[in-house]
Amino acid sequence: MTPREPHTPPVDADLVDRVVLSIYEEPLLCYLGSARLPSRESIDELVELLREIVFPGFYGRRGLTHISLPLHVQELLSGVAIRAEEQIRSCLRYRNDVDTRDADCPESAECDRMAREATRAFLAFIPELRDMIASDVRAAYDGDPAAHHHDETIFCYPGVEAIFCHRIAHFLYTHNVPLLPRLIQEGAHTRTGIDIHPGATIGRSFFIDHGGGVVIGETVRIGEGCRIYQGVTLGAKSFAKDEKGALLRTGEKRHPTLGNRVTIYAGAVVLGGDTVIGDDCVIAGSVFVTRSVPEGHVVRQKSPELVLRSNTEIMGVVSDDEIPAGG
Amino acid sequence: MTPREPHTPPVDADLVDRVVLSIYEEPLLCYLGSARLPSRESIDELVELLREIVFPGFYGRRGLTHISLPLHVQELLSGVAIRAEEQIRSCLRYRNDVDTRDADCPESAECDRMAREATRAFLAFIPELRDMIASDVRAAYDGDPAAHHHDETIFCYPGVEAIFCHRIAHFLYTHNVPLLPRLIQEGAHTRTGIDIHPGATIGRSFFIDHGGGVVIGETVRIGEGCRIYQGVTLGAKSFAKDEKGALLRTGEKRHPTLGNRVTIYAGAVVLGGDTVIGDDCVIAGSVFVTRSVPEGHVVRQKSPELVLRSNTEIMGVVSDDEIPAGG
Amino acid sequence: MTPREPHTPPVDADLVDRVVLSIYEEPLLCYLGSARLPSRESIDELVELLREIVFPGFYGRRGLTHISLPLHVQELLSGVAIRAEEQIRSCLRYRNDVDTRDADCPESAECDRMAREATRAFLAFIPELRDMIASDVRAAYDGDPAAHHHDETIFCYPGVEAIFCHRIAHFLYTHNVPLLPRLIQEGAHTRTGIDIHPGATIGRSFFIDHGGGVVIGETVRIGEGCRIYQGVTLGAKSFAKDEKGALLRTGEKRHPTLGNRVTIYAGAVVLGGDTVIGDDCVIAGSVFVTRSVPEGHVVRQKSPELVLRSNTEIMGVVSDDEIPAGG
Repeated sequence: MTPREPHTPPVDADLVDRVVLSIYEEPLLCYLGSARLPSRESIDELVELLREIVFPGFYGRRGLTHISLPLHVQELLSGVAIRAEEQIRSCLRYRNDVDTRDADCPESAECDRMAREATRAFLAFIPELRDMIASDVRAAYDGDPAAHHHDETIFCYPGVEAIFCHRIAHFLYTHNVPLLPRLIQEGAHTRTGIDIHPGATIGRSFFIDHGGGVVIGETVRIGEGCRIYQGVTLGAKSFAKDEKGALLRTGEKRHPTLGNRVTIYAGAVVLGGDTVIGDDCVIAGSVFVTRSVPEGHVVRQKSPELVLRSNTEIMGVVSDDEIPAGG
Repeated sequence: MTPREPHTPPVDADLVDRVVLSIYEEPLLCYLGSARLPSRESIDELVELLREIVFPGFYGRRGLTHISLPLHVQELLSGVAIRAEEQIRSCLRYRNDVDTRDADCPESAECDRMAREATRAFLAFIPELRDMIASDVRAAYDGDPAAHHHDETIFCYPGVEAIFCHRIAHFLYTHNVPLLPRLIQEGAHTRTGIDIHPGATIGRSFFIDHGGGVVIGETVRIGEGCRIYQGVTLGAKSFAKDEKGALLRTGEKRHPTLGNRVTIYAGAVVLGGDTVIGDDCVIAGSVFVTRSVPEGHVVRQKSPELVLRSNTEIMGVVSDDEIPAGG
Repeated sequence: MTPREPHTPPVDADLVDRVVLSIYEEPLLCYLGSARLPSRESIDELVELLREIVFPGFYGRRGLTHISLPLHVQELLSGVAIRAEEQIRSCLRYRNDVDTRDADCPESAECDRMAREATRAFLAFIPELRDMIASDVRAAYDGDPAAHHHDETIFCYPGVEAIFCHRIAHFLYTHNVPLLPRLIQEGAHTRTGIDIHPGATIGRSFFIDHGGGVVIGETVRIGEGCRIYQGVTLGAKSFAKDEKGALLRTGEKRHPTLGNRVTIYAGAVVLGGDTVIGDDCVIAGSVFVTRSVPEGHVVRQKSPELVLRSNTEIMGVVSDDEIPAGG
């Protein structure tokens, strides 16, 4: 790396020493182990190949015919198999290396065996994955009067992208693959603004419309045919801690359960591991729910009274508090 | 695609068969037609070229002079013309192919004629587009005390990016180009977190600040000089359905109308096709509005009473419900 | 750029003239100056190199050892020095060129001197930057029961990405580098949905969870050990204006102050330059705060009464207003 401009300040040796020292003094931010880390590039390729298998003709090679399809599918599956096994193995070995003091941690050869097994299971899951995504695409079309065709939801809907990635990440999560599910999910989060933890269990025919700001926590359970809008949080109340004040990471249920055919409109917040929203409930926009709702109910909030004042009336006397802005 | 690692599990023929079968059984997720689909890459190039025409010197080639400008503009327009016509034609032909049973659907030659016409109209619209964007850039600067120069809003403001893409998408939408407007809009949505349906009609001098989570529905109408903050929804109430429970896609007005110089602060929600917010109204942050507001009014909510409790007072006895979190 | 398809409509000379005219008539959208503008590509490279220095082994070159580390660090620092000085100089010279009528504006040679100085200060800041980021990574792990390891927060947490970029941008902001801090911040905003103005002052051990829709204004001050969730706004009330109605850009404090160890849950809004949230306060989700809160308090809102109605009861008679949706 040669300086492109002669007057660039040379980096003095003292600074290099100070930065290297700061690295040694703070092992938390540094990985000098020998394991190959997961590769974002390879994970992105994996997700793209899966997209091409789930939506053939819409993504990837164009001009597919009934004759060319089988060979095309074989090539895609082969590409998925290579990348999936490679990345699962990297994640397992890396975790192994980091956790060497952890007695439960598998040896390297054991990592490789687990990676092969998880990959085989994942490949076998693909037809079911396609079937679930098809139910989600139908739900997107059926749920949005602005959708003119099913393919519009495949091409353009962040909610379809989010559930596509979630169903992949959730399978890997339930098969005990570390790190990789989160990396897949964060890719989707970045692209869509929809943050679904890979641990969340979500039934068929799920649709998130618009989706910006949606957060769905790790232990959420959602039935079939549910619909959620932008800004909805399915979250935790306060977290359990040990006597020293450290969080308990016991995996207990911290987030709510939705039954079947539940609709939650924009900005509503539903919190708590014991909170169960029954079948066919509708939660109105901006409602804050921390208790269970029996099936078949519509939940609204008593809207706070609106205060209208004429602009001219308050002109010149408007105090800061008259118009709570948020800008 | 050769396996990079020898022990990669071979993809067995049975799996290929199962996946191929799943594709045949679910035609919804698959496109085996002969039409060339719209290309995201080409659409991205189209948007970039338009950005260079709208903001010459700020984007694209640097060091432009009054002498080099005309040739530069000609080249950019030529690049826009090629990509616009190509993508509009792809979208029309593809829609044609998918809708073959639809009697209203234009033939392929007719698609090409329509694409030429829409492209010609779009090119002629560019000076007006630039004029509208200039009004939006002024509104961004005039509306944000944190903006130190106009160019800062051109370089950095997601709200300027969102309205730039929207004005392009809206023109194409009103000229009956299928799919392409949504693809352009979703690009902007991904980059900015601002989701403006291409159908929304928005007057000059429009500014969205911050913008994450903003949703503006298909049949929204917005006057001139309006300003909107992050998390604002201009949305629908419940959707009309036919007797079988399917959504009616009749294009009736489902979303609100804003007059001129309306300001809507962060997180406010305005819903309904009959809801009209009059000229010069100000909607305070987090207000939920489902009815019309006459012009010249400030709308606040009666804030719910705040409950303060000392931390130490509740220490040890805090129940889950004391601190509704949302984490 | 040759047309790829023969029937592409030639761009007629009249249209070129009209677009060129629209450029001359609207100088606001056009930069024909001689200064080299900041380069997004170079800025992205700068941020990537800094990421590799802050998280060696996690990002960038793999397989680092104690032996190879010092040379690696030297190369990275060298790359940072070149790009930082180049971009700072571009921003200073460009601003200089735009502001020629501004008496306070430094000459070109002075710009170069300032760029060298700011770069030297920035390089010297890197060990402290690493130390602060380490405190943030610890806060992320300590604050989220769904985080299984510290490295998960480095790989996957948008909140870590956002504060990483903010700490870089804030340093440059406080050293009077124009434009560059905003460009760095908007990159993070696009990737994470978290919008922190470079001017905001944020203490150690800061954690934003999920983060979509978070807005933190220019004059916010945040103590140590604070935690914020998705959708939180720390914003301004109404803006001060001069007698002509133009915004005052005086840099007065428009945004709130948080003490140490303050937690603000999802969707809460805290507004106003005089609003101070004391040490150890907890603001519950969705609360709207425009006044100060003394230290050690939990703030909830009296939840508005929920209205439950059975679905079947209202079937067929549901008016639009029964279910305020937001879709």
